[in-house]
Amino acid sequence: MNIPLTPLRFLRHAARQFATRTAIVDRTYRSTYTQFADRAARLAGALLAHNVQPGDRVAFLSTNSHQLLEAYYGVLDAQAILLPLNIRLAPAELAYILTDSSASTLFVEPQFLPVVAAFLPQVPTLKRIHLIEGTPDTATYPWLSPETYETLIEKAEPHQTDIDTIDEDAVCEIFYTSGTSSRPKGVALTHRNVYLHAYNSAIGGSIQNGSVEMHSIPLFHANGWGIAHFLTVTGGKHVMLRAFDPTELFRLIEAERVQYFRGVPIMVTVLVNHPDRTKYDLSSLKSITIGGAAPSPTLIRQAEQAFSCEVYTGYGLTETSPTLCTSRNKNPDNIAGEERYIAQSLAGYPYPGTRLKIVDADDNFLPEDGVTFGELVTRSDGVMHGYWNQPEATAEAFRNGWFHTGDMATINPEGYVALVDRKKDIIISGGENISSLEVENTLLAHPAVLEAAVIPVPHERWGEVPKALIVLKPSHTLTAPELIAHARVHLAGYKCPAYVQFVEILPKTGTGKILKKDLRTQYGHPS
Amino acid sequence: MNIPLTPLRFLRHAARQFATRTAIVDRTYRSTYTQFADRAARLAGALLAHNVQPGDRVAFLSTNSHQLLEAYYGVLDAQAILLPLNIRLAPAELAYILTDSSASTLFVEPQFLPVVAAFLPQVPTLKRIHLIEGTPDTATYPWLSPETYETLIEKAEPHQTDIDTIDEDAVCEIFYTSGTSSRPKGVALTHRNVYLHAYNSAIGGSIQNGSVEMHSIPLFHANGWGIAHFLTVTGGKHVMLRAFDPTELFRLIEAERVQYFRGVPIMVTVLVNHPDRTKYDLSSLKSITIGGAAPSPTLIRQAEQAFSCEVYTGYGLTETSPTLCTSRNKNPDNIAGEERYIAQSLAGYPYPGTRLKIVDADDNFLPEDGVTFGELVTRSDGVMHGYWNQPEATAEAFRNGWFHTGDMATINPEGYVALVDRKKDIIISGGENISSLEVENTLLAHPAVLEAAVIPVPHERWGEVPKALIVLKPSHTLTAPELIAHARVHLAGYKCPAYVQFVEILPKTGTGKILKKDLRTQYGHPS
Repeated sequence: MNIPLTPLRFLRHAARQFATRTAIVDRTYRSTYTQFADRAARLAGALLAHNVQPGDRVAFLSTNSHQLLEAYYGVLDAQAILLPLNIRLAPAELAYILTDSSASTLFVEPQFLPVVAAFLPQVPTLKRIHLIEGTPDTATYPWLSPETYETLIEKAEPHQTDIDTIDEDAVCEIFYTSGTSSRPKGVALTHRNVYLHAYNSAIGGSIQNGSVEMHSIPLFHANGWGIAHFLTVTGGKHVMLRAFDPTELFRLIEAERVQYFRGVPIMVTVLVNHPDRTKYDLSSLKSITIGGAAPSPTLIRQAEQAFSCEVYTGYGLTETSPTLCTSRNKNPDNIAGEERYIAQSLAGYPYPGTRLKIVDADDNFLPEDGVTFGELVTRSDGVMHGYWNQPEATAEAFRNGWFHTGDMATINPEGYVALVDRKKDIIISGGENISSLEVENTLLAHPAVLEAAVIPVPHERWGEVPKALIVLKPSHTLTAPELIAHARVHLAGYKCPAYVQFVEILPKTGTGKILKKDLRTQYGHPS
Repeated sequence: MNIPLTPLRFLRHAARQFATRTAIVDRTYRSTYTQFADRAARLAGALLAHNVQPGDRVAFLSTNSHQLLEAYYGVLDAQAILLPLNIRLAPAELAYILTDSSASTLFVEPQFLPVVAAFLPQVPTLKRIHLIEGTPDTATYPWLSPETYETLIEKAEPHQTDIDTIDEDAVCEIFYTSGTSSRPKGVALTHRNVYLHAYNSAIGGSIQNGSVEMHSIPLFHANGWGIAHFLTVTGGKHVMLRAFDPTELFRLIEAERVQYFRGVPIMVTVLVNHPDRTKYDLSSLKSITIGGAAPSPTLIRQAEQAFSCEVYTGYGLTETSPTLCTSRNKNPDNIAGEERYIAQSLAGYPYPGTRLKIVDADDNFLPEDGVTFGELVTRSDGVMHGYWNQPEATAEAFRNGWFHTGDMATINPEGYVALVDRKKDIIISGGENISSLEVENTLLAHPAVLEAAVIPVPHERWGEVPKALIVLKPSHTLTAPELIAHARVHLAGYKCPAYVQFVEILPKTGTGKILKKDLRTQYGHPS
């Protein structure tokens, strides 16, 4: 018997088997699995009543609200495609994403209405914009639907699609990543991708039934959506953290007996050093997973000591649903002390359903000796269907049948992956990917700029920040603050260069490509 | 990215990620996952070298040997179909199964050679018979290959099929069940069935990485093969119990720190009451799962007290890979004392990936109120592809899109299934299914028998045993011992009637079907 693999089955199961359990805690809002499923079904009904067609893209501009979590299922039950948006993006970036995906419907939190107002003229495909909560101010925002998420589902007839009519290989979610190219790319995940990724993660993480997890990572982000699905099928409690606020995080752990949360290294560093930490009962914690960037063994040790729980990493990409690896200690009897912290600071070893290899530039497999490094490639059930409407970029990423992560790594004989270097051009700042190409293209748009190269420089708080190396056009003048002001018009703040250095030439390869490696060596420090 | 779902991936994963862990303990034999995978690959190489073709059936007549466990993967890696045989069957039954499946190759433990000698003349399709262990006595058994399992794999080149070439919907395992009809039926499971069943079971059972499980249920049996697969992918330790011997079971728990085992009620009853139990350190046990027949709440309580661990049921059928349900307490905060034991003695609530409903005779869904009962039907990823070469029986079992278990049950509002009655005609004796039709057909083959009906009667040790009600042909005489002797020629011992009662008439419906229900009421006790 073949039953289509779709995450819709997760909520169906939980609603029937864990009906009265608490499903979601979001500020003062609490729902059971019965209510969670009912609201998701009503969202589906409302979308259908508003003529959303199968395969339509339905976007959300939201923090970690219970409504966004409901949409993980409700949008799919309308046979539409969920498109969660990164709330940190600039209006021009959001306009690009909404146009590229030709989204028909947008749900938005009140705080982001000015952002919508800024990009709306450039997004003619948007048919309806609904407020997620609050009362629509249609005087200020005349394009806003008078119906909010809440009034929509209040009036709607619940709708659940017959699971058997679902094509498990159809796209159900799109997330945009900055990726390696200059424009965000839509990562298209199928029902089967999402389903099997959740299963691989649950088994790889030895997830217990009825766990309590805090969504400390945005639900619009790699990491967030993987957890949401396996937590639902195991009847766990979703504790929403709308923004990173250490005191609120501590309070929620104590109040909801949170067992698991996840963070980027800077978040965990802040929590370890926070004066309020010892004021709360955090004894319910079982583990903290660090992702987004490599933590130091020191941070692993400090966090384990501060929280009296296991601390390890998770590694993955938007394109892989995301999780591929965990550094959760797999041989607890054979490793202790500082060696254990070092092992737990690595990217880790693959989850079930996941194969990882390293390859050279010609896609030859390299030895897994812990020394040789190459590009990390993977084959896993969670690897995306492809980039939305980008068959060439997709083919490039999947060459030779393996998905190319762009990360340089070693693999040791025990199967542990250590990241050696990141994708050549990507800067990771506070857990966010920044495409240097995208920043360069923005800088190159300034009339005084001849050539631009953006490289990472170390930053105490954010890990890395972008630094721009600029060759001016002859007879032109420009100051660093002027160029940064130009960038801010087009890019999210975190993508704008923190430093600008004007240079005479940029070193290049024979075929004219800028030698970033050399630039990093020469200029890879705050100027 | 779609990667075929096949259990072969489980051993590939474990061999790479848990290479040095102990994989199998079988008497004095121990292997790591590296060795387990190497031997499985060598078995595949040996089969291919002996011209086994894709889709060929390779049978095993074996207790819980490490070789049978290796075959779970090695036979599949040769792209052949694994056919484990029930060692308790009579030669005529084995002959039927091997002929029905037209198996080409048989591996056999030395102790079963006389059985093979007895059925071999009736199985012309068998091309090769290899001893699993020991030295072939080709003088006594001239049809025995001089090459044993061990010499085969010693000489073989390891072979691993490219996972991408596997059709996940192809049949990879066949198990014969006595089912409801008079002849054993081959339950054909696909790679996808087996893969997803293992995943559903692992998540439903909250299986931890690196668990230690004793295979106390035969690996040729429903239950055994489900556990084998999820234990492999999570890098657990397989502890083989070749035959049910309480002292050996206790010894293995202590020696190998076994965390989980499974048994039918009679096994657990014996263990609870065994005088040697307290002589062993059984503190590693985390849970015992009881299946095959419904245990009493009293047994659950006694076993929890005797073993200081959780004791609950699992429910499933050969046709469902097998596990559908667990009675593992899902609301530990809301239930205690005798009520908890009652809940844990029920068939339980469905695993993820599994839906259960009850239907009336016209396949209308019935209310899940804990009172109304109907036939239990299911939709689950583990439900078989179909009965081997029996399209009509398959269509009948899958009518209306649901697999019909033949078990009568209630479902309560919390989702718990309680079995009310078994398939009308099935007798379950010591955890083995006995088809009353099959026994009746054997009895009807006796020249003196006119009509025969077989019903269950209660039995202290085996739960139930078959009782035969016989109408003799006019002017014929027959004694009970004579009839039982006749049955023993054709049937496994446990299927032979324990009691025979001669009657004048058998009550029938208008269409001539014997009214079993009435017979149970009138004669359902030892005569």
